Amino acid sequence: MKLNLNQKELCENLDYSFQNLDFLEQALVHSSLKSRGANNNQRMEFLGDRILGFVISDYLFTNYPEWKEGDLALNYNSLVCKKTCGEIAEQIDLGKSLIMGKSESKHGGRLKKAILADALEALISAVYLDSNLKTVKKLILNLWSSKLKNVGDVELDSKTALQHWIQGKGGGLPIYTDLKKEGLDHDPTFHVQVKLDNGLTANGMAKSKRYAQQKAAEKLLLEIKKINE
Amino acid sequence: MKLNLNQKELCENLDYSFQNLDFLEQALVHSSLKSRGANNNQRMEFLGDRILGFVISDYLFTNYPEWKEGDLALNYNSLVCKKTCGEIAEQIDLGKSLIMGKSESKHGGRLKKAILADALEALISAVYLDSNLKTVKKLILNLWSSKLKNVGDVELDSKTALQHWIQGKGGGLPIYTDLKKEGLDHDPTFHVQVKLDNGLTANGMAKSKRYAQQKAAEKLLLEIKKINE
Repeated sequence: MKLNLNQKELCENLDYSFQNLDFLEQALVHSSLKSRGANNNQRMEFLGDRILGFVISDYLFTNYPEWKEGDLALNYNSLVCKKTCGEIAEQIDLGKSLIMGKSESKHGGRLKKAILADALEALISAVYLDSNLKTVKKLILNLWSSKLKNVGDVELDSKTALQHWIQGKGGGLPIYTDLKKEGLDHDPTFHVQVKLDNGLTANGMAKSKRYAQQKAAEKLLLEIKKINE
Repeated sequence: MKLNLNQKELCENLDYSFQNLDFLEQALVHSSLKSRGANNNQRMEFLGDRILGFVISDYLFTNYPEWKEGDLALNYNSLVCKKTCGEIAEQIDLGKSLIMGKSESKHGGRLKKAILADALEALISAVYLDSNLKTVKKLILNLWSSKLKNVGDVELDSKTALQHWIQGKGGGLPIYTDLKKEGLDHDPTFHVQVKLDNGLTANGMAKSKRYAQQKAAEKLLLEIKKINE
């Protein structure tokens, strides 16, 4: 196998040269290419998902020793979710190197975030299989560097702010209740309610339970601001 | 810190000696011990979950090169689920070493599978932090050895058997449809239907989607057997 121009560019964007190009190629094969049978990137995506999970959780655990489990999980989910993986895949222009069925390609498959995210996870596997954990860890932290800079910025604010406000008033801690979960398994939407012991409530919905809590807290803070104006 | 008798026995069961006993101790502190504040095993559980995920997925990927992603995921879920982790925690008698609040301990906390499973994941973290990935990988594969022997045994049978049967009859592939998902986020129950193109259907429910599919396939096979008797 010889690299085509797109693949060469992809390897440059990854800052990685494959010893065994078969790993790279299999990572690029989407399941819509029926002629390849099961020889697509799905197995590699399965493994890559867990490699990414380990590397990112290890990074957060080490670099944020003061964070509780909830804060680790909140930021972790935002870093490894399909949306983020899709964005990083776009940064390295992964779409044009994908090998896919004609119909999927015609229907914009190269632009679909979910397909791009899966392929990025498969690529992570490919680099791991071609080298070792140390190398793929470096590659992941490099690819994720701009996302890692923003870790812990915005999302923790509303819950913390609400908690500080209520504690300043001598009230009990806000209570968060799960209302419901909607949607398909791989794409759920969570509805959450926050309640203060003065009876004030607000609801929030989001793609993760903790973001839904943040949104509920944010809404309640706005309510409080309005009341106090 | 000095090891007590239970902790000594636990380390023997793990076949591991800690350099830094603080890692061991923190892994054993359940969140019900309020005097410790956030200094419990929850952060370690977060990381341990991902270490376990990576090690088990890597093992399955390497040892079952013929498996598709679905089979990898099915067996992976059964190996890393709370139930399995709880069973392994029981094997090493982890419960009696747990450091927990008096009330939780009185209410059987040392016997609760979920608490045991979380503590085992925290212990995995503790060993990783005290040594390295190679060492914790060996420890995990050692602890999981009896479970790994049974991998791929039972659960793949019904779906495969149904597929073979229908293909032998010249029919189309069975179609699996998700009916609904019930229960809390951390403990969902999936309901699935399988349908053949001759109109026969059966439902299955289980704690994972793929097990629910297996159960539906199993039920349909029994139906077919009855009809053909």
